[in-house]
Amino acid sequence: MKESGIGSHKIIRRKRDGELEYLPDQLTIEEPLEIRVGRKAVATTMRTPGHDEELAAGFLLSEGIVRTRNQIASISGNGENRVVVELTDGVKLNLNSTKRFGTISSSCGLCGKTSIDAIRQNFSAVRSKTDIRIDIETLLSLPETLRDAQSDFARTGGIHAAGIFSLDGKLKIAREDIGRHNAVDKAVGRAFLDELLPLERHLLLVSGRASLEIIQKALAAGIPIVAAVSAPSSLAVELARNSNQTLIGFLRPPAFNIYTHVERVIFA
Amino acid sequence: MKESGIGSHKIIRRKRDGELEYLPDQLTIEEPLEIRVGRKAVATTMRTPGHDEELAAGFLLSEGIVRTRNQIASISGNGENRVVVELTDGVKLNLNSTKRFGTISSSCGLCGKTSIDAIRQNFSAVRSKTDIRIDIETLLSLPETLRDAQSDFARTGGIHAAGIFSLDGKLKIAREDIGRHNAVDKAVGRAFLDELLPLERHLLLVSGRASLEIIQKALAAGIPIVAAVSAPSSLAVELARNSNQTLIGFLRPPAFNIYTHVERVIFA
Repeated sequence: MKESGIGSHKIIRRKRDGELEYLPDQLTIEEPLEIRVGRKAVATTMRTPGHDEELAAGFLLSEGIVRTRNQIASISGNGENRVVVELTDGVKLNLNSTKRFGTISSSCGLCGKTSIDAIRQNFSAVRSKTDIRIDIETLLSLPETLRDAQSDFARTGGIHAAGIFSLDGKLKIAREDIGRHNAVDKAVGRAFLDELLPLERHLLLVSGRASLEIIQKALAAGIPIVAAVSAPSSLAVELARNSNQTLIGFLRPPAFNIYTHVERVIFA
Repeated sequence: MKESGIGSHKIIRRKRDGELEYLPDQLTIEEPLEIRVGRKAVATTMRTPGHDEELAAGFLLSEGIVRTRNQIASISGNGENRVVVELTDGVKLNLNSTKRFGTISSSCGLCGKTSIDAIRQNFSAVRSKTDIRIDIETLLSLPETLRDAQSDFARTGGIHAAGIFSLDGKLKIAREDIGRHNAVDKAVGRAFLDELLPLERHLLLVSGRASLEIIQKALAAGIPIVAAVSAPSSLAVELARNSNQTLIGFLRPPAFNIYTHVERVIFA
């Protein structure tokens, strides 16, 4: 990940001792990316340039627009903040799924339960297999492994990271982005393009918090265990419980919290 | 801010000494909110419930849909994750501004410069006044003041905060939300509804990073100084420079960085 988009810029820094210094600073690059399916713009996201094709693939997967690699005929970035995805002949672009909040009218109106029901209509729960488990020592090793794969600057907090690990703690894919959801889309998109889904025997680790959409993206990829360095939201916990995913939060070795499906953590 | 939406939930915690405990945990509530102008849904955001009318007002302001308080006839939340804003007779809903990325076609295509130009078409630069300045001791006091206004749980990292301060360091408005942009919309929306704009003699402090949209929201409110606890993005720095805003990052007393318009910081 050493090549993540970082710009250079002159700043004034007040050091801890009160002295001032003038120095070049590194900035996380933020640029808009338009994702098109054919000629239809389906989303624009502010992202850190790089791995745009993966981002598009991960986004389309987690919105339920594509399900298998062969539904995508081609993905091409133009180097100008636009990615065009061509679907295979016969694959229909169903955009309702990306607009689900606006179109659903149920007894609870627009609410978390509606959001979760909509996601679950698109994605089955992760399957229960008794041998898909992770031990505590491995779990505790993951944040450092992910940090080691990041650039120096990234570690200062300027950029989010997402890592997909095997259950023995090996880092398989790591991606950085100014947006946590983009980092996850890039990581999951890479696995999708490599036809590695469902990622049954894997774990997703994200820097920062775990919101509903992070769990949704993990579910789209079939990932049974999600860990976050900071707090999960109420809906993240609800979706994880509902979709048979283990959710770990505040993973700050040697401590962590388990919010759902504790059976996948080996305490022995 | 003590009433911020927090739910209770049973979790397993591995403590630092390796012992396990079962305890109720607090979770940041995340629920969708649909913002309507009349019968038109203009946005759906995942937010922490509470202060929804402020969120809607702040959002409409920073998207350039409304500019003055009297353009809004009424704002009503229905308690069901929907806020309906009625514009005053004769005020036209111009949605192009909210869709600006999709409609602009310039020499650089879709890029950061286009984004900044589009924002600057909506909002003038902050005016230069030589007496609008903040001294270092005051600046260094702000993060603690904001934290003191937050709930215990919020301080653990589960929720973002935005605070609007006067230049002598007094906290005027503080809001929390699972989304940093929502916290800023709520704070700015409150000031907008109270007809306090432009907030010429004020500073906006946000927990976490400063992206383009944070600077955009501050600019919409006429705020000349923005400080962030973590890193700004490249576009945030570019917009701040371009719109005459002072941008401070990594405000972690006693250290901080100044990225733009240093003249508003008193080093004496």
